[in-house]
Amino acid sequence: MEDHLTLCDIGNTSYHFLKDERDTKESVATFDPSTLTEDVYYISVSPQADALVGNLANWHDLRAYINWDNYYETMGVDRIIACEAIAEGLIIDAGSAITVDLVEEGKFEGGFIYPGLEAMQATYRNISPRLDYSLNFELDLDKMPQNSRDAISYGVLRTLYSEVMRHDQQIYLTGGNAKVLSQLFPTAIVDEHLLFKGMKKMMEKRC
Amino acid sequence: MEDHLTLCDIGNTSYHFLKDERDTKESVATFDPSTLTEDVYYISVSPQADALVGNLANWHDLRAYINWDNYYETMGVDRIIACEAIAEGLIIDAGSAITVDLVEEGKFEGGFIYPGLEAMQATYRNISPRLDYSLNFELDLDKMPQNSRDAISYGVLRTLYSEVMRHDQQIYLTGGNAKVLSQLFPTAIVDEHLLFKGMKKMMEKRC
Repeated sequence: MEDHLTLCDIGNTSYHFLKDERDTKESVATFDPSTLTEDVYYISVSPQADALVGNLANWHDLRAYINWDNYYETMGVDRIIACEAIAEGLIIDAGSAITVDLVEEGKFEGGFIYPGLEAMQATYRNISPRLDYSLNFELDLDKMPQNSRDAISYGVLRTLYSEVMRHDQQIYLTGGNAKVLSQLFPTAIVDEHLLFKGMKKMMEKRC
Repeated sequence: MEDHLTLCDIGNTSYHFLKDERDTKESVATFDPSTLTEDVYYISVSPQADALVGNLANWHDLRAYINWDNYYETMGVDRIIACEAIAEGLIIDAGSAITVDLVEEGKFEGGFIYPGLEAMQATYRNISPRLDYSLNFELDLDKMPQNSRDAISYGVLRTLYSEVMRHDQQIYLTGGNAKVLSQLFPTAIVDEHLLFKGMKKMMEKRC
């Protein structure tokens, strides 16, 4: 395994790079991938980025490495790569969307998509200016709220929490909001490099 | 109790009228409340409507009838009125927002706010055009999804369901999406006039 490879996980909003164990981010809206001359091994869920990197000979799409027997056709490649990284557990990838995927005995057993935390806050704000609150991550999960900020925080976080905890699985947290969500899931393993681990594993399988 | 009173529940998007046991709706964006000459007893969560009806002598705000010892200051008056309608249970009022409120032994015990179904669909669509799906209300709630439409439907509906069912209470469903949500909650009592019942009860208390 060559650790000086450049890996890139392209989400809806960011290019997330890993090279020599250091990670950096660039914006999907502004970054020009043709400025890189080295080989880049990537996954992407961004139609906008796909249109740019698809024509570049040094950008290699790891989508080609996926065994599609284990996944469904329209499943986001980021979710698939995350599932490849673990043998057992529930993966929460908290970015612009929050994906929750179940892996049992090395096999993907289904998953769901919840809106990202920023998207949810915007949703409330758009319903009514009276619902414009920042989320309270120190919310008491065992008490129905008695104030507006907690009523909204509970609506976003407790609903997700109730469903996640029902599965009684080891939780893996990754994505840009992994750390903030770990306040809700104190027993979760936070691993912001989980997708890069999945990418490396897939590349090793092929070697 | 005079049943020929005109009652009006003003939400974020609609004026919902009840008169002589018949209900009608008008849009908050376009309806002019000064066109009504009879006495109207109303509640409102719309700042836009408040600005219009507040100056009309024949529009009577039932907010004045609320005993605020039982509720919190910024709580939507629609939620309060719904709580006044029942003695025990969990009220789901599914409109542009979905409010979930717990009443035990006639007392409000807290509640939360979830985005409305249309708002949630718009949220996914705004995150990515690849997440633009209509919700599947016939979703299998006991199986983690294996396709995109169900992954999103589950994200919206199963999370809410998991939290709601945890309370093990009689569910009351009201609001514009009460019927569609009753597919998820088959034991729920659907009552699209629940808020009007609460309004009548409050007016009776004062008489």
